[in-house]
Amino acid sequence: MQISSDVLSHGGRQLVVTHDSAATATPMTFSLFLPPQAEQGKVPLVTYLSGLTCTHANVTDKGEYRRSCAELGLAFLAPDTSPRGDGVADEEGWDIGLGAGFYVDATEAPWSTHYRMWSYVTKELPALVAAEFPALDLDRQAITGHSMGGHGALTVALRHPARFRSVSAFAPIVAPSQVPWGEKAFSRYLGENRDAWSAHDAVALIASGDRLPALKVDVGGADPFLERELRPELLEEACRAAGQPLELAVRAGYDHSYHFVSTFMADHLQWHARHLG
Amino acid sequence: MQISSDVLSHGGRQLVVTHDSAATATPMTFSLFLPPQAEQGKVPLVTYLSGLTCTHANVTDKGEYRRSCAELGLAFLAPDTSPRGDGVADEEGWDIGLGAGFYVDATEAPWSTHYRMWSYVTKELPALVAAEFPALDLDRQAITGHSMGGHGALTVALRHPARFRSVSAFAPIVAPSQVPWGEKAFSRYLGENRDAWSAHDAVALIASGDRLPALKVDVGGADPFLERELRPELLEEACRAAGQPLELAVRAGYDHSYHFVSTFMADHLQWHARHLG
Repeated sequence: MQISSDVLSHGGRQLVVTHDSAATATPMTFSLFLPPQAEQGKVPLVTYLSGLTCTHANVTDKGEYRRSCAELGLAFLAPDTSPRGDGVADEEGWDIGLGAGFYVDATEAPWSTHYRMWSYVTKELPALVAAEFPALDLDRQAITGHSMGGHGALTVALRHPARFRSVSAFAPIVAPSQVPWGEKAFSRYLGENRDAWSAHDAVALIASGDRLPALKVDVGGADPFLERELRPELLEEACRAAGQPLELAVRAGYDHSYHFVSTFMADHLQWHARHLG
Repeated sequence: MQISSDVLSHGGRQLVVTHDSAATATPMTFSLFLPPQAEQGKVPLVTYLSGLTCTHANVTDKGEYRRSCAELGLAFLAPDTSPRGDGVADEEGWDIGLGAGFYVDATEAPWSTHYRMWSYVTKELPALVAAEFPALDLDRQAITGHSMGGHGALTVALRHPARFRSVSAFAPIVAPSQVPWGEKAFSRYLGENRDAWSAHDAVALIASGDRLPALKVDVGGADPFLERELRPELLEEACRAAGQPLELAVRAGYDHSYHFVSTFMADHLQWHARHLG
């Protein structure tokens, strides 16, 4: 593990860390913000999964989370969205391959060699940060994410029901099996047999009985991907049918960018902090 | 004038605008945040001048000013740091030429053709935004900046004493005539006759009798440029000798990056808002 950057910010430490990942068999980079409270004791951890084309850097630069995390005493962990480097498969288009790991363990060649983001974000990364940063209280965790990362946050939380006290998402892909981005990615990474897809589809998981603790979702009313890729109404219907509580808000006029994410970041972090105690 | 981006952010509008500048004889790009209050009436304007290597985009992405500006009802204007494009002189090194205009009107060849940032930020840009954005109240203005842009903010305000109600800076170059960055830039842009330099040197201007309304300066205690390039003690001495009030704070542990700027941005904006009424 190599700390490439460790900068005082809003009273806490903004770290950027690179390590050799066993899950992806590549170096992986993540950012971790430790709030000032981490100097005195254990702090809860919010994991943020990023969207298509992003690295750890997008939310680290533009997410505007540090002020709230410092006020609330929250650590904030932001991994990359795919393996990268020599020999990592890619394909033309920004919605597949590099920057588009979709938080699955690929089973199909050539992706299966390195695209193991599910194992990375659910097992290897939490174990690594728990070992290396003892101030993190992994008994108090929340998860959130943006777009493809909202999909990741929902599915990771649905399949780890004891791990997170609260789950939120900004403009998430809620039903990847039913939308073009997800169909393209899952057919490449998981193959054409759609039975394998449902384990990575939040709407399908909720329909099959999985549940979330507390759930908050915001989408932008002017998001150009709203109707074709995000389809929050499918989540709303699945939650209603399943009796899963959901706080969903459509924010009029907001788009899909980090202007939307940063505007509502403080709301989400305050909400998570209430659940994290 | 062409608005290349107009995005809802924190309840206001984050604009990016490109126009043909008469001052620099190039296209110039700036960002302008209009807070939600600009929909109802006039709002005060805070101009932010950026540092070496930056464009409008650095503070727009990483400055974390929008939340405070939206709360306080402040517009926030961020110009570029130099002319750019075909035929614009440059020289090797990031402290001269592109991204390093130093907010002067160059008098020496080859710089004098386009490097006219003084005229741009003091005359052309304020006139343009006043004409194009009638919600801006140019009778209530503040100015701030970072590093080279802190130098710009101080010198622009010292030479326009009736224009700004408050002036602040993050890690400013306060005495360019006495430090390597300034000596290099001024000798190229203004020539070897140092008499021409003092009109662009905050410490020299204060010593010669110019004054500022309210003045707030923060510097990072771990800023690697503190002792050689920034030298806040020279500003402190000049202000003390001149009876110029100064609120100077050295922020222990902070570096020269946008982590420092964004940490103290809310403080500066709240302070400006108090002076702007």
